[in-house]
Amino acid sequence: MNKNLTLLFCFSAAFSIGYAQTDADLEAKATAIQSRIFTVDTHIDTPTASLRRKGWELTQRHDVATDFSQCDFPRMKEGGLKSAFFAVFLSQGTRTPEGLIAARDSTLKIFMFTRTALARYPNECELALTADDGPRIAATGKRAIYLSIENGYAIGKDITLVKTYYTLGARMMGITHFANNDLGDSATDAKGKEWGGLSPLGKDVVAECNRLGIIVDASHSADSVLDDLISLSKTPIILSHSGCKAVYNHARNVTDEQLRKLAASGGVIQMNTLSAYLIPTPPNPQKNEAMGKLMAKFGSFGDMSDEQLGDALMQMHKLQHDFPDKKGTIDDFMTHLLHAIEVARIDHVGIGSDMDGGGGLIGLEDVSDYTKITLELLKHGYPEEDIAKVWGGNMLRLMKTAEDYARQVKPAATAPAKA
Amino acid sequence: MNKNLTLLFCFSAAFSIGYAQTDADLEAKATAIQSRIFTVDTHIDTPTASLRRKGWELTQRHDVATDFSQCDFPRMKEGGLKSAFFAVFLSQGTRTPEGLIAARDSTLKIFMFTRTALARYPNECELALTADDGPRIAATGKRAIYLSIENGYAIGKDITLVKTYYTLGARMMGITHFANNDLGDSATDAKGKEWGGLSPLGKDVVAECNRLGIIVDASHSADSVLDDLISLSKTPIILSHSGCKAVYNHARNVTDEQLRKLAASGGVIQMNTLSAYLIPTPPNPQKNEAMGKLMAKFGSFGDMSDEQLGDALMQMHKLQHDFPDKKGTIDDFMTHLLHAIEVARIDHVGIGSDMDGGGGLIGLEDVSDYTKITLELLKHGYPEEDIAKVWGGNMLRLMKTAEDYARQVKPAATAPAKA
Repeated sequence: MNKNLTLLFCFSAAFSIGYAQTDADLEAKATAIQSRIFTVDTHIDTPTASLRRKGWELTQRHDVATDFSQCDFPRMKEGGLKSAFFAVFLSQGTRTPEGLIAARDSTLKIFMFTRTALARYPNECELALTADDGPRIAATGKRAIYLSIENGYAIGKDITLVKTYYTLGARMMGITHFANNDLGDSATDAKGKEWGGLSPLGKDVVAECNRLGIIVDASHSADSVLDDLISLSKTPIILSHSGCKAVYNHARNVTDEQLRKLAASGGVIQMNTLSAYLIPTPPNPQKNEAMGKLMAKFGSFGDMSDEQLGDALMQMHKLQHDFPDKKGTIDDFMTHLLHAIEVARIDHVGIGSDMDGGGGLIGLEDVSDYTKITLELLKHGYPEEDIAKVWGGNMLRLMKTAEDYARQVKPAATAPAKA
Repeated sequence: MNKNLTLLFCFSAAFSIGYAQTDADLEAKATAIQSRIFTVDTHIDTPTASLRRKGWELTQRHDVATDFSQCDFPRMKEGGLKSAFFAVFLSQGTRTPEGLIAARDSTLKIFMFTRTALARYPNECELALTADDGPRIAATGKRAIYLSIENGYAIGKDITLVKTYYTLGARMMGITHFANNDLGDSATDAKGKEWGGLSPLGKDVVAECNRLGIIVDASHSADSVLDDLISLSKTPIILSHSGCKAVYNHARNVTDEQLRKLAASGGVIQMNTLSAYLIPTPPNPQKNEAMGKLMAKFGSFGDMSDEQLGDALMQMHKLQHDFPDKKGTIDDFMTHLLHAIEVARIDHVGIGSDMDGGGGLIGLEDVSDYTKITLELLKHGYPEEDIAKVWGGNMLRLMKTAEDYARQVKPAATAPAKA
């Protein structure tokens, strides 16, 4: 390009940026982009947060202020969110044989009420199982719902359950939740390390996930597990809802060095919106005490009827509302997101909010607010192509890679023998 | 009653029977009764026969002549069938550890596609879980669908799966299918007896079913298993789809002595409509050969996509249509039904057709024909009260007894401790 042309180009670019930067124009542009691109949130807890509440339906619009839920189909549409990974989340119980059986059964129950909840609305949503499914379903105007396992405790010590859950629809699987389990170490177990990374079973689980085409998820796991996953997994891994230690030093976040390593291996980090991981938050002993009492009152969630559980969930949400934790803002979220993009590069960052599971910020209260993230990215100069990567392209690439690998190692679907 | 009154009573009865016996009147009466009473068929194979066929929907009326299916909601309505036990049926594979894991996974898959198929039509049907559910749901004009396990092979050697399947909706469980398994002996295993009744695991399974409130089903099991079940089960058992050896001597049928023993223990036998169990049928080597080739061509059903399986099912049905087995008639069915009523008495007999699973007769082609059974019972002089017992009352009593026992041995749903 010669100097004059370059000058002309720079002038045009500056002019168009300057022109676009009036707020109303930028907002219109954000809305237009949001409606055009494929968008997926890789961690939403609607199954356990809302779906068992009596009378709660995905097709009704709920209000986060009174209902405390953060995701339903009307709000997904408002926020331009085409797709989500609904987490089959299992809070960790005992690791006794009985505890592990109960874990399996709870997991199956969550799969069942989630799948039946989706089945009620064939015109509103579809279960998504492949990278192609998301955009294909979104193009019909329906929500594309993927399923993921949060907490490898769901399989106990029975590796065959990985395939079981795959068969039931899971396409992503996290190794741990708050505590160490039989697969590996958690980032937040007060007892510290148990395995020093993945357990032998955990390593086998990674191979099994690869074989099936399940994306392995390092969120909630110890740094040592992240390292193990990056080196062991045959296809790039994900952090489905995490943050940056360089911005706020929390065990649930990862260092810049890990971000670079993750990116080098082809993986992605999906930025979460949970205040306690984004900014320093003061302790909240009153809430903790009240929550302790509530949990003692309720006893085992597994034995509750749907009505009882719905009531318990509402009381828990109300309590969190009455004794609020300090809440971050959308700016705090953007600081993490932009830092991750800077360090890991645009091809390795996405969004996994943890809405309904502790996520949600001032200015980003529920999924209906998601166009604001696009607006912020526009304000920071990112073009639509980059925004599309963050909102879904990177995740689709990950899924596609996992599927391709599985197809390559698995024999093709039973070919009919000659009759 | 004195002689004159007796005479008057006999005369009135004879007159009213005589009056009712004009065909049109009896048919109108049968239709009216059929619409009034609660009706349940305790064995229908719609899940594995139809629900995985691409595009096949429970709410559409299908034609048995071209589609080969025998049950859908429109035809249930035509036949006045309010409720059915849809069988989660597992054809038996190998009893290796891998085989048993595959059995568990296939079972879970059948539960999932059955429950999601039902969930698609909340205005047309509802999953029924208790004896009260059936009549309650039927009163709203919806179909009440119960789930049962056909073949204890579904749990392999893992007794904890009984509760898993209960949680997913099963309320009746058969011990075996065509072959012996780890729970006990089949009525039709060519290798003969293996356990001489229930295995030790099978005995534990009975206790577990009782504890949960699952009705134990002896259909397909060896006579020795039936004997064991009657003596071991804490609540009356069922033969969900069987026939009478005194009418036609087949291993799938039971003797008059067993009928009396079953009745004395409070149990019920539900009459099936499968020709090969009702009447002598000549061998059909051409069909068997063609079926063998077809099965070899298809390979493993478990690995097929829904489309492939739907195609395979249609080809199998077509083959049965092209090389038909000798078919019994509704009269053959009535001979078994009336014999069972005579021997076991009216409180211990019902209907479990095995439609979609081999059932279906000339004059009783699918569930839309069910009013004919009521008409036949009327012709044989049974009052509405008795007909109601056969069509559902006896089964509801069995369920209620199983539930009451379970409630008594189980602690009530977690009572909130004082906060």
